[in-house]
Order: sequence, then C-alpha cells, then structure tokens
Amino acid sequence: MKVLKEKILKYGRVYPGNILKVDSFLNHQIDMRLITEMGGEFARRYSGCGVNKVLTIEASGIILAGVVACEMCLPMLFAKKAPTKNISDDVYTTSVMSYTHGRVYDIFVSKEFLLSTDRVLIIDDFLANGVAIEGLSELIRQAGATLVGCGIAIEKGFQDGGKRLRGKGIRIESLVTVDGMTDNALTFAE
Amino acid sequence: MKVLKEKILKYGRVYPGNILKVDSFLNHQIDMRLITEMGGEFARRYSGCGVNKVLTIEASGIILAGVVACEMCLPMLFAKKAPTKNISDDVYTTSVMSYTHGRVYDIFVSKEFLLSTDRVLIIDDFLANGVAIEGLSELIRQAGATLVGCGIAIEKGFQDGGKRLRGKGIRIESLVTVDGMTDNALTFAE
Repeated sequence: MKVLKEKILKYGRVYPGNILKVDSFLNHQIDMRLITEMGGEFARRYSGCGVNKVLTIEASGIILAGVVACEMCLPMLFAKKAPTKNISDDVYTTSVMSYTHGRVYDIFVSKEFLLSTDRVLIIDDFLANGVAIEGLSELIRQAGATLVGCGIAIEKGFQDGGKRLRGKGIRIESLVTVDGMTDNALTFAE
Repeated sequence: MKVLKEKILKYGRVYPGNILKVDSFLNHQIDMRLITEMGGEFARRYSGCGVNKVLTIEASGIILAGVVACEMCLPMLFAKKAPTKNISDDVYTTSVMSYTHGRVYDIFVSKEFLLSTDRVLIIDDFLANGVAIEGLSELIRQAGATLVGCGIAIEKGFQDGGKRLRGKGIRIESLVTVDGMTDNALTFAE
C-alpha cells in the first residue's frame, strides 16, 4: 500500500533490535485519515468472505480494527491483556509472550462475545514473530469459531511469524512488508 | 443522548461496587454504529472551539477518541500505561490510581506529540472519580498545552469526579449521566 509505505519512509524510525517506530502516525499519535484508508483496504480485501466480527488485541490494534469494522458494518471485539474487576470470569484465555514488553501476559475475551458461529477477521498493526496472532487464533479455536484471515498493517518479512502462520493455512493480508531493517535503512518487499 | 441511554438500559449490567458493565457495546465488544454517532455528537459540541488534537488513554477510550478525531479531521493521541522498549524516554508522565484495576500506574505521552501550541479535547468512556482525566490534564499542563474540554460517554454523577473537575473550570460534556445505581436499577440525570 503506497501511502503507508511513503509514510513509513518519511516518519518511521529504525532502532537497534529490529524496532520500527511508527508512533507518530500508527500506534501512539494516530493519523486518522491514513487509518481510514487502511481500514478501507482491508474491507475490500475481505469483502464477500462472510466475516461477521473483527477481532484485535489492545491497545495499538484497536483503532485500525475499529475502522475496518466500521467499513464492514460489523462489531469489533478486542482481547484484553490483564484481568480487571470489570470483566467476567467467563472468558476464553491464553498466554502470549510479548517481546516488546519483555514478559508473558494473558489475553482474554468474554465467551459471550465470541461464538462458534462467528467468522472472524483478525486485525493488528504489526506482524513479526506472530505470537499475538497465534494467541488470538487460540481464542477463536477455543470458541469453536472460524478464522477467515488476518489483516496486518506492517509485516516484518524478515521475522518468521508470517511464514509460520501461512504455513498453517491462515490467510494473511499485509499492507506493507518490510524485508530488511539495517543501519537505519528500510527495504520493502515487491 | 437518547440512543446511548437506551443501549445502557437494554444491555448494561450493574454489579456491586458501583460497577456498570457496558462491555457488549462500548469497551470490549464495540458497536461501531453507536460509537460513530457518539463521536459525531462530541464533534458537534466542540466545533468552533479551535481544538487541534484529541487525547485519550488506552485502552477503552481509543476507539471513541479515534471516531471523534476522524469526524473533526484531527490527529488522535493516546496516553500509554506502561513503559515499553518501543517508546522514547522523552515523555510527559504522571501517576494515576486505577480503581478498576486496584493499582497505581504511570501514564505517558511522547513530548514530540503534545506541544505548547496544542488545544486539546480529552475523550474517555467513563468519568467516575475523575483520576484518569486529571492524569491526562496533568500531561497537558506539563506540555504547556491548552485543555479545551472533555467529552465523556458515561458520567457517574454520584461520584465526585465531574463536580471536582467542573469546579476547576474544566468543561465537561457527558453524553449520559447515571445518577444512581442500586439493586440492579439505573437512574439517569434529567
């Protein structure tokens, strides 16, 4: 997706440890016009697939997933990361290793909002090692729901998540794939 | 706001400890059509006020703030709750007591995204004791920016946050004010 690639080249910053910071437009300060375009693109790619629910994980996936859900006239559900007094005990849950935060955390969704009849589109901002997507897939599996596919803003093609998930037969649509991040320079696939 | 009040009466659930669960449409599973209507209402109430940035706090404020920002053609910024490797050290930060989670946490925004020239609209899903709004106000104060006002989906009128913030001269616009929550029954203001 050209507009996202240009935005990354202009405003993204590369740091040691394969960290690509896009917090000026994607996951801290949000460029709503860009997000709306991105959401529209996912809606087009997954139109006619019978999706009835959009699923993401807090916090940085929420805004993009919301825009996709809005475009597709569907409800959006976001998995939460830690138990609160406000959430039912009646949840599907699994553990996810966060490399960003350097720790393992639990994610969960209320059972009442993820049904065996649901056909789910997962949306997230990044795909690197794939553990967040695998965690969300596991919640879908526990519910007996169907994973239609994933929509990813930025895939790190040099990490193994995309390959592993596609190897399991999961459809992954990435708007931009970064193939290399070295010496403050980015290279893109295609 | 009639449509939100009806939704709360139909789907909201009251639990001991003044907990109002609205996670079927507002802060876990999201009804995007409702959120879009709510966002439009805030945009109308704050039109012509010179707002140039919408600020919220992760995670449950993000989707509503995003819709408001989209309606007003502005960027949205969300304060984060815990340090990550992906965020600059160059942040405005303060501590907030979460009664929902029963602990104190730090919130922060990158200094580069909150400027002294900014005129900020704070958006959040709930206003109860007001500590989250006070935390966001403190970040705005540190930046030397201007707080134009706050837009709240559901104000708990029987807790002191709204009164205390208005007493400081802060403009608060709540779409719905719950005046009482007892014995599984809700009463609304006006």
